[in-house]
Amino acid sequence: MSEMPQADVDPTLEADVFSRNCSSREILQNVTSRWGLLALVALLDGELRFNALRRRVDGVSERMLSVTLQSLERDGYVRREMLQAIPPRVEYSLTESGRQVAVLLAGLIDLVEGQVGSVDGARQEYDAR
Amino acid sequence: MSEMPQADVDPTLEADVFSRNCSSREILQNVTSRWGLLALVALLDGELRFNALRRRVDGVSERMLSVTLQSLERDGYVRREMLQAIPPRVEYSLTESGRQVAVLLAGLIDLVEGQVGSVDGARQEYDAR
Repeated sequence: MSEMPQADVDPTLEADVFSRNCSSREILQNVTSRWGLLALVALLDGELRFNALRRRVDGVSERMLSVTLQSLERDGYVRREMLQAIPPRVEYSLTESGRQVAVLLAGLIDLVEGQVGSVDGARQEYDAR
Repeated sequence: MSEMPQADVDPTLEADVFSRNCSSREILQNVTSRWGLLALVALLDGELRFNALRRRVDGVSERMLSVTLQSLERDGYVRREMLQAIPPRVEYSLTESGRQVAVLLAGLIDLVEGQVGSVDGARQEYDAR
């Protein structure tokens, strides 16, 4: 929070994503980012190595996936484990809070995938105006 | 979908957000964008005029809110109504599919707002490594 309280920020709220200075907004952006969202939901099925995750999240670059996973690991949503093996293996998995978020995101994906037809219809109607 | 099917795209799936060419991915991005998400959830409490919505979504510029609402309206998630009044009033509200998405997003916001403390802890631990 900024040191100068703003008139439109309710000081009684502990976390309010509607307030521009609340850190919850930034956290929310990490988990709903283009690649963050897909990586979290991909890990719902179990731990994955970097390259397997990259194949699942079709279209992501190595660098963007790496940056995304680092930010999710820093926020405590993803666990990165180095396995003793030759060659060494790195596996990614969800933490408990990561799983909680991923479950909700998976529900959102299901909903939106089911709405593709109606969205296409709405777009055609809008564009024809 | 592109006309040239790609080997890694499962043609039996109607909509798959994990596939880079599926339009569901773009729709998902519109509803989880920084401002799209907040605008949808703000409208859960009822219809709002542009300026009221802008005050609620703290920090959004007039232009970004306008672009965001236009894209949500085109996708059929938000309804824009011009009311006969002097001066004319424009009100925004959720459609049924917008409401369905907004309910899930509100659940995600609640979850993430409750995780702010644990995320802060995880960050401190990560940064101290």
